[in-house]
Amino acid sequence: MATAETSPALRADAARNRERIVAAAMEVFAERGLEASTAEIAARAGVGEATLFRRFPTKEDLVTAIVQMQLEGAAEVAASCLEEDDPWRGVERFLIEMVGRASEDHGISDANKERCMASPALAGERRRVLDLTGQLVKRAQGAGVLRDDVAGQDLMFLMGAVASVGEIPFQGLREDLWRRYLGVVLDGLRPEGASKLRPGAPSRKLIENPDPV
Amino acid sequence: MATAETSPALRADAARNRERIVAAAMEVFAERGLEASTAEIAARAGVGEATLFRRFPTKEDLVTAIVQMQLEGAAEVAASCLEEDDPWRGVERFLIEMVGRASEDHGISDANKERCMASPALAGERRRVLDLTGQLVKRAQGAGVLRDDVAGQDLMFLMGAVASVGEIPFQGLREDLWRRYLGVVLDGLRPEGASKLRPGAPSRKLIENPDPV
Repeated sequence: MATAETSPALRADAARNRERIVAAAMEVFAERGLEASTAEIAARAGVGEATLFRRFPTKEDLVTAIVQMQLEGAAEVAASCLEEDDPWRGVERFLIEMVGRASEDHGISDANKERCMASPALAGERRRVLDLTGQLVKRAQGAGVLRDDVAGQDLMFLMGAVASVGEIPFQGLREDLWRRYLGVVLDGLRPEGASKLRPGAPSRKLIENPDPV
Repeated sequence: MATAETSPALRADAARNRERIVAAAMEVFAERGLEASTAEIAARAGVGEATLFRRFPTKEDLVTAIVQMQLEGAAEVAASCLEEDDPWRGVERFLIEMVGRASEDHGISDANKERCMASPALAGERRRVLDLTGQLVKRAQGAGVLRDDVAGQDLMFLMGAVASVGEIPFQGLREDLWRRYLGVVLDGLRPEGASKLRPGAPSRKLIENPDPV
């Protein structure tokens, strides 16, 4: 039976609507925080509030969709960094681009984002990012340009650490600060002068299937 | 005129009460967040609610007192690290102890703490911490064991970055994570293999007299 849901043209239209709503929600949350009204998000996306509520019954659904989009973006960045000729440059560019993206994402409070980021529904997206960062790390270690005691999940935690420096609510990150401290972390990831990191790398499970908060 | 306020015994008593209230508030906020009741804080401190309200009319006053105690603690740690024979060990121990302390301080939301941390009333405490971390840095640089393009304020920002890793609301920091990533940062602070950090060190003013949030 060919319902509206199965018509390709309408499906494409629905997907575009969904994308517009998620992009609008990210912008509006960045400007006003999670308290922003859904009316404003719908207006920014150019859709009716009924459409918004049908697709995202709760704000948590919206935040989860934003986080999903961010994880998909992270996978794209990692895949493109794997194509850098210089394996070190691949690791470096991944971290620079990811912290840069985090700086646009300051409207969603950490606790809310972390809960959605840990959602079981996004385990596949998280696994994909970890697979790709694992490849970035192994490639650079194989070339002898990255300390040999780190794993892909370490890049994710280090990125989060740097992205927290100089975070000012609703104003984003100070680029002069995060670039500087990412420089310290990058030097610390080089094999020259590396100590032995203790304890060892955390389990991938911490990111892929974390315990519920 | 010898009033209660000027009697040394009563002044010492008042100072002890104040200290007990601040310590109790830190514990209770860590357990329940800023929503914890003042009745619970007073009970934990072993004082009446009237005493608590007289000394700290608002929760903001309590948080500011906690932050002041933390800044004084940071100055004590820095001063003791300046007495390490090994200048590198001084820098290293300062960062380890300070991130460890941050892990006990998870009940106060960042935004609230940052606002109080930036209070003009605490500029003297902030200056003292910056003076001491500046000495730690210069001493280690003079011994050739610390990269020469960092300043005392960089230690403060790096400490905050590492302290944000694996922060779980009301559960504190995962020590295995912060120790590991502090290891990366410490390696990045060594002169071996150091790149040139860009941009340069941030102004002390960012910490000493920040613009109001």
